Amino acid sequence: MKSLQRLIDAFRKFPGVGPRQAERYALYLLRASEAQAAEFTKAILEMRLKIGCCPKCFAYSENASLCEICSDDTRDSSLLCIVEEPKDIEAIEKTKSYNGYYHVLHGSISPIEGRDAKNLKLKELLERVEKEKNTIKEIIIATNPDTEGQTTALYLADMLRTLGPKITRLGYGMPLGGNIDYIDEMTLSHALKGRTKL
Amino acid sequence: MKSLQRLIDAFRKFPGVGPRQAERYALYLLRASEAQAAEFTKAILEMRLKIGCCPKCFAYSENASLCEICSDDTRDSSLLCIVEEPKDIEAIEKTKSYNGYYHVLHGSISPIEGRDAKNLKLKELLERVEKEKNTIKEIIIATNPDTEGQTTALYLADMLRTLGPKITRLGYGMPLGGNIDYIDEMTLSHALKGRTKL
Repeated sequence: MKSLQRLIDAFRKFPGVGPRQAERYALYLLRASEAQAAEFTKAILEMRLKIGCCPKCFAYSENASLCEICSDDTRDSSLLCIVEEPKDIEAIEKTKSYNGYYHVLHGSISPIEGRDAKNLKLKELLERVEKEKNTIKEIIIATNPDTEGQTTALYLADMLRTLGPKITRLGYGMPLGGNIDYIDEMTLSHALKGRTKL
Repeated sequence: MKSLQRLIDAFRKFPGVGPRQAERYALYLLRASEAQAAEFTKAILEMRLKIGCCPKCFAYSENASLCEICSDDTRDSSLLCIVEEPKDIEAIEKTKSYNGYYHVLHGSISPIEGRDAKNLKLKELLERVEKEKNTIKEIIIATNPDTEGQTTALYLADMLRTLGPKITRLGYGMPLGGNIDYIDEMTLSHALKGRTKL
């Protein structure tokens, strides 16, 4: 049946969805009640209509207004943390160890996959740092600890070095609860270099 | 953001989708291009509009007409195979070992989950077998080999016994490629009872 296959094909494009899962999802929507199916498609349309980017940090925000974090002026304005994706903000917020502001790049640099710097929110970052260079004291680069993230971090460090604020990146080392036996040599080597005094 | 959460909640109701997966799917739809998102919601609406049940066997069919199998009169009309769900037909068709017609129950009897016989397409099955009792020579009950499927099979056998056609069910035994060590005792016991001559 063509119309079922078409939906299965659409589900196959979702991240990490295989052929059998796509079929299960499509059949779930076929069997769902009229109200459930309507709620689902309505939720998609409304979300796409309502959610845009915060004009300051480019995290997601509703109704294209300043996001919750940017509009909270009790936070520490001397700190700016640069992340790849909006969901990284959530992860950092959960730690309750950071109280500054954010900037979302919306991606990373990957020469292999043909993603270069021009797709990232870099111009906006530069403008913001220029404008706030008297307030921002430290820029924390919190890109992912993978090749793309490291490439992006080096690129950012080069770009921001002359502007004034101190540039730092997240510390690498042993994950808590880890077992030295099982940790890869790169991480262990970082943990050795970054050893601290007891 | 409420509108994002609402879509995540909708995805959580999909079969086998956990909280992180639901979030990934919702974010995928948030980032998708306008065309991709429109294609997705359109595919859902069109599928729900177009796909109904075949009026004869109750498999899914497009435009509420006879399904492909029911409208194929080269098949063996002396065989009727009863399955729980439309997707079971596909599995049986893939074997290329069956050339008869089907009847879909749309569920199974489960006293524990409160699903009784009245939700199944049983009245329609009875009417069909009555009408075709001079053509149908064998009814193959192909419900799942689990408790609900077995209950349903016994119920069906009782119901159809007096109507004429021979009632059979799928053979149980060792799955091909299986290892006797790893097979549960119930299956092994069925395999012993159902042993065949070499």
